[in-house]
Amino acid sequence: MTQSTVAAPAIGVFDSGFGGLTVLRALLAHLPRARFAFLGDTARLPYGSKSRRTIARYAVESAQFLVGEEGAEFLVIACNTASALALDAIQTAVPAIPVLGVIEPGADAAQAASQSGDVLVIATDATVQSHAYAAACRARGLRALEKACPLLVPLVEEGWTSHPVTEQVIRIYIDELLADARGASLNPDTLVLGCTHYPLLRTLIEAAVPPGMRVIDSAEAAAQAASRLIDGRAAAAPQPIFAASSAERIGLLPNPAPETCLRFFATDSVDKFQRLGSAFLGRPVPRVHLVDLGG
Amino acid sequence: MTQSTVAAPAIGVFDSGFGGLTVLRALLAHLPRARFAFLGDTARLPYGSKSRRTIARYAVESAQFLVGEEGAEFLVIACNTASALALDAIQTAVPAIPVLGVIEPGADAAQAASQSGDVLVIATDATVQSHAYAAACRARGLRALEKACPLLVPLVEEGWTSHPVTEQVIRIYIDELLADARGASLNPDTLVLGCTHYPLLRTLIEAAVPPGMRVIDSAEAAAQAASRLIDGRAAAAPQPIFAASSAERIGLLPNPAPETCLRFFATDSVDKFQRLGSAFLGRPVPRVHLVDLGG
Repeated sequence: MTQSTVAAPAIGVFDSGFGGLTVLRALLAHLPRARFAFLGDTARLPYGSKSRRTIARYAVESAQFLVGEEGAEFLVIACNTASALALDAIQTAVPAIPVLGVIEPGADAAQAASQSGDVLVIATDATVQSHAYAAACRARGLRALEKACPLLVPLVEEGWTSHPVTEQVIRIYIDELLADARGASLNPDTLVLGCTHYPLLRTLIEAAVPPGMRVIDSAEAAAQAASRLIDGRAAAAPQPIFAASSAERIGLLPNPAPETCLRFFATDSVDKFQRLGSAFLGRPVPRVHLVDLGG
Repeated sequence: MTQSTVAAPAIGVFDSGFGGLTVLRALLAHLPRARFAFLGDTARLPYGSKSRRTIARYAVESAQFLVGEEGAEFLVIACNTASALALDAIQTAVPAIPVLGVIEPGADAAQAASQSGDVLVIATDATVQSHAYAAACRARGLRALEKACPLLVPLVEEGWTSHPVTEQVIRIYIDELLADARGASLNPDTLVLGCTHYPLLRTLIEAAVPPGMRVIDSAEAAAQAASRLIDGRAAAAPQPIFAASSAERIGLLPNPAPETCLRFFATDSVDKFQRLGSAFLGRPVPRVHLVDLGG
C-alpha cells in the first residue's frame, strides 16, 4: 500500500459550467477532508441545448482530464444533462474509475420522499428530452412527469434569484406542470430539481408548489450517494483503500494544503467562473486554472 | 472570365446559432437571386458568454468551412458577438474574401438616424464587454451607451416573443439603460438592436422606449451594406465579377435550383435549427446539413 492510497480520496467533479458547484458544496459538507478537482467546461456550455453525441464527446474529454491530469480516483458528474446523456460514455472512457451521476441519487431521494409514487421533475431541455429521470423513476416503481424550464438557468446567471420576474416564470412553469399532471391523472407529492442551478431558486420554487409537496435537491442527493460510495468501497476493500473507513474518519487525516485540497479548472471565462461561482459554492471561489480541451 | 465568375455571387452567412437568420432574411430581400450558404455553429453556442480567444477560434473555423467547402466569395458575419470579437481574425484567415460584420453597418445606420448624436445599444454580454459598438459609434462622432441584456435571447428561444414576462424584462432593461443615460448626461434618440435575436422583440422594444426614439435593426443595416458592397465590387472590377452590376440585375440572372441557392448547415441540433429557425427566417427552413468542425 503506497502513501497515495492512504491519502484522502481524490474526487473529480465535472460540470458544463459552474452550476455543479452546488454539488461540490454538498460534497464538501459530507467529505470535508477529501481532495477535489472541479472542472467547468465553460467554453462549450450550455450542454442543455445540445445533442447526445456532442454532449458525450465533451463530457468524455472533461472526465479524461480529471482522471489523467488531476489523478481523480472518483468522478462525480455534477451536471444533470451530462449524467442523463453521457454517463455510459464516461464510464466506458475511464473504466477503472467509479463514476457517479446526479440522476440516480435524485431518483432514490424521490422514492424515499414520495408517498403517492407520482413525481414531478424540472430540468433543462436536453435532460427532459433524454427522459433519464422518468426512466430512473420508473425503475423504482414511481411515475414521473418531466418539464423543461429553459429560462431558469439564464435567470440564475443574471443574478435574479429572488426577482419578481423569476417568481412569475417559476409560477408559470410549475402551474403548467401541475396542469399536465392533472391531465395525466397523476397525484404528485414530490418535485425533483433536475438541474444544478435550481437549488439557488429553492425558496421561490417551494413557494410555487402546492402546500406539502416535497422538493428534492439532486445536488444534495448526489453528495450523500458519493459519501456512501466512498465509505462502502473503503469498507469492502481487502486492503483498505483509505486509512479511514468513513467520511468522518477521512476527516481526521492530515489536511493537505488548501491549493491541493480544492482545485478549480475552467475551459473559458475563468473570471466569470470566479465571480459568479461563489453564489453556487457558498464561499469565495479561489484561483481558477484555464485548461484547453481542444474543442 | 469563367462561367463561375458570372454566376450569382456565393455569399456565406455565419452565426453562432440561428439568430443570424434575421440577417439572411434581410439579405434575401436585398439580393433575392444570390446563392447563400448559412452556417449556425449550434454545437458551441452561445458565443455571447465566451472569451475573445475562444470566439475567434470558433468563428475562424466556421468561416473557413463556408469559404473552403461551400465556395463563399463574400462572408457576412451575422452574429454581433463574432463581429465584435472575431472580425479581424476571420479576415486574416480568409484574406481574399470580403468579410462584412453587423457592427459597422449598425453604427452607420445609427449615425444616419440620430439627431442628438447620443445612441443606446442593447446586446449580449460579450458584445457589450468588447465595446465594439461604442468604438464604432465614437469613430462616427456619436456617443454610445451599451447594455447587456442576457435574458432576451433565452426568452426569444422559449418562444415568448410577445409574452408579458418578456415585456417586463424589456421594460426593466430599457428603464435601467435610460437611467444610466440620464446619469451620464446623455440625450439619446436612437436605440441599436445589437443582437440578431432582438428583431423578433422589436414590437415590445418599440413600446418600451420613449416616444420618438428610433430603433435600428443591425440585421437590416448589414443586409443593406452587403448589397452595396456587392454592387460596388461589381462596378469597380476591371472585368465585371458578376454579369449584373446591381442587386436588381443579379436578380435577372437565371435562378439556380433551390437547393444550390440556399443551403443550411449546423454543427449540432439540426432539428431544433429547422424548428425554431423559421421564426427568424420568416419562411420554413428547408433541410439542414450537419457538419463537424471538430470542436
